Amino acid sequence: MALIVQKYGGTSVGSPDRIQAVAKKVAAERAAGDSLVVVVSAMSGETNRLLELAKAVNPDMPPRELDVLLATGEQTTIALLSMALEGIGCPARSYTGQQVHIRTDNFHGKARIQDIDAARVRSDLEQGRVVVVAGFQGVDEDGNITTLGRGGSDTTAVAMAAALGADECQIYTDVDGVYTTDPRIVPEARRLDRITVEEMLEMASLGAKVLQIRSVEFAGKYRVPLRVLSSFEDGPGTLITYEEEDMEQALISGIAFNRDEAKLTIRGVPDQPGIAHQIIGGIADANINVDMIVQNVGGDGTTDFTFTVHRADYAKALDLLTKQAKTLKAREVTGDDKIVKISIVGVGMRSHAGIAHTMFKVLADEGINIQMISTSEIKVSVVVDEKYLELAVRALHSAFGLEGEAAAG
Amino acid sequence: MALIVQKYGGTSVGSPDRIQAVAKKVAAERAAGDSLVVVVSAMSGETNRLLELAKAVNPDMPPRELDVLLATGEQTTIALLSMALEGIGCPARSYTGQQVHIRTDNFHGKARIQDIDAARVRSDLEQGRVVVVAGFQGVDEDGNITTLGRGGSDTTAVAMAAALGADECQIYTDVDGVYTTDPRIVPEARRLDRITVEEMLEMASLGAKVLQIRSVEFAGKYRVPLRVLSSFEDGPGTLITYEEEDMEQALISGIAFNRDEAKLTIRGVPDQPGIAHQIIGGIADANINVDMIVQNVGGDGTTDFTFTVHRADYAKALDLLTKQAKTLKAREVTGDDKIVKISIVGVGMRSHAGIAHTMFKVLADEGINIQMISTSEIKVSVVVDEKYLELAVRALHSAFGLEGEAAAG
Repeated sequence: MALIVQKYGGTSVGSPDRIQAVAKKVAAERAAGDSLVVVVSAMSGETNRLLELAKAVNPDMPPRELDVLLATGEQTTIALLSMALEGIGCPARSYTGQQVHIRTDNFHGKARIQDIDAARVRSDLEQGRVVVVAGFQGVDEDGNITTLGRGGSDTTAVAMAAALGADECQIYTDVDGVYTTDPRIVPEARRLDRITVEEMLEMASLGAKVLQIRSVEFAGKYRVPLRVLSSFEDGPGTLITYEEEDMEQALISGIAFNRDEAKLTIRGVPDQPGIAHQIIGGIADANINVDMIVQNVGGDGTTDFTFTVHRADYAKALDLLTKQAKTLKAREVTGDDKIVKISIVGVGMRSHAGIAHTMFKVLADEGINIQMISTSEIKVSVVVDEKYLELAVRALHSAFGLEGEAAAG
Repeated sequence: MALIVQKYGGTSVGSPDRIQAVAKKVAAERAAGDSLVVVVSAMSGETNRLLELAKAVNPDMPPRELDVLLATGEQTTIALLSMALEGIGCPARSYTGQQVHIRTDNFHGKARIQDIDAARVRSDLEQGRVVVVAGFQGVDEDGNITTLGRGGSDTTAVAMAAALGADECQIYTDVDGVYTTDPRIVPEARRLDRITVEEMLEMASLGAKVLQIRSVEFAGKYRVPLRVLSSFEDGPGTLITYEEEDMEQALISGIAFNRDEAKLTIRGVPDQPGIAHQIIGGIADANINVDMIVQNVGGDGTTDFTFTVHRADYAKALDLLTKQAKTLKAREVTGDDKIVKISIVGVGMRSHAGIAHTMFKVLADEGINIQMISTSEIKVSVVVDEKYLELAVRALHSAFGLEGEAAAG
């Protein structure tokens, strides 16, 4: 008799056959006694089709109108899924973001949900209907259609679960859960039964992209029990939790990595207040995101400064930094875009010392040189030469005992 | 400085190129000083694509969800046209039926417009924007998306023009106006500069289908000046008027014909009250529309009864009538599906006697036998053998002086 919000992504609803398969699954769970709200994305390929049309009439794609256009993608899916449900005798009702009052701010293309009026959804659930809601879209206070940006359907599902006080929010995707690391790199990688929201946030932002990060933050804020499952095979998936109930929990939950970064170093700049702001400010002004930042103070009144940016921004950032180096009278500027960032993540780190030490030893034993280090409460990240990616991840996965059966993160 | 509502159908917005062409035209008229509201249909082919998807998930296509699905068609067009307008420096805003509060009843698939709240449109117009509105769709009082049925975009345009008190409602289509008859039959057929709404209604319902009939009724009710024009070539089109201002007006405006009917006759039924109801009632109960009905009373206390139905319903109607003939002890039942209905239409008939007489004489002179006659205040219809269609229409077109230059209907 639980109230469950489920979300199915574009691949899961990518064809009439797949929509019918989702309908079957949903109808079976309703028949088993659960109340269901189903949030869906646009059919895979649909958003790109619409973008092509938009580009053909106006390459600038004005944001307000682009949102009106893209919102048709999910509207198509909600209608089709509701029809499919009705076709197998399961009463259903579809709602657009506007109809179910998913109120957002007015930042077209990246709007944030402010409020959901769930009264109508509740009334339908009470009447035994499955409620099918368009993900990714909302409406601002002036009635303009907005979208939450790609992947925003996850956020819609979590927000809906929060508004309804649902027992669980299930995100169906094409993977069967969150893994200790990428199984393509480490075949022994293991699905986690549970992971804390903090770990999930670190894993997601570090490249293990299973869930849209904003939806995880949202779930954390409202403590919505969130589960990642496969829409193609049965299984318990991975539950994202909010409490470190399990005293016996593993030290680390997973190993994330990111191959999309490049490293830049400026050496011998005067060690004086405001210098970090001056260097990073110039990069940020050019709309380049900076990830890791490391500063070492030398003995000669100068300092070295290293940071990473997205690889796509490498050339631009190197150019900017070279110009700044002249102004700052820095000794030299170097860069490297053949690097990889590897992170170990786990709430167990909080109560156990020596995790970083173990990590460094494992890498040293394999002869892997660490170029940068950055730590947070539940994460240690290192930058190494990209050629060591597989070796480093496998060695760490084994050293921290992540292989083997089950066990929660 | 006029306020104009324009409507472009699916062919006129059938591709990004065509949408850009419409945008250019609209922007030019705005630049010339007019305020413009543009109502658009789904891109040609889009509605069929959506129907295919619907059939694939549920051949029954539940009406509420079908409307949610089909409404995406016009939503796509409004976004694209607004983008195209913005792309050439013409400020524009798109609105779905729901956003501009096109309130309808809740008959999904054939909803009727009850009310439009035009405040938002007015505010945009005052700010110099072109307002682009999705045709064919509305919202019922519970916030459910409804559609007006195929061709309903014409009705949306007329309703919008009525709500705004527009100076003119222009329906852009693939013909350049209303003709005295079908130019494929009579090459001398002439575009009418003007036609009265009553004539237009008779012409439309009789087969000269340029405008959706409901939109013409709507225009008549609110006295919206309605003009039919070509979206592919310049020209004044045909203006639909509400007053018979022109004393010199032609006797008849046009000749309509309908090849889609079949004729059924039941002979020798008892001439007693209720017999017509009994015969037509049985046909109507089977959901068959009856068009012309003619009854002749014989001298022997029996009566003959002839009526026409759509050709697609001919076999079914003949079968039903044959069964009824037994119950009614009728003498015989005959039928003919090789007929055509030809009508002369004109408000001039009201004040001029002898129009029907002239028609009959023209047909007699050509040796064409008249099988049925039916008249209204501004129309005379006859049923003849379909092989005489071209001959009859050409003879009438010439006899009533419809060829030649210009002149209003």
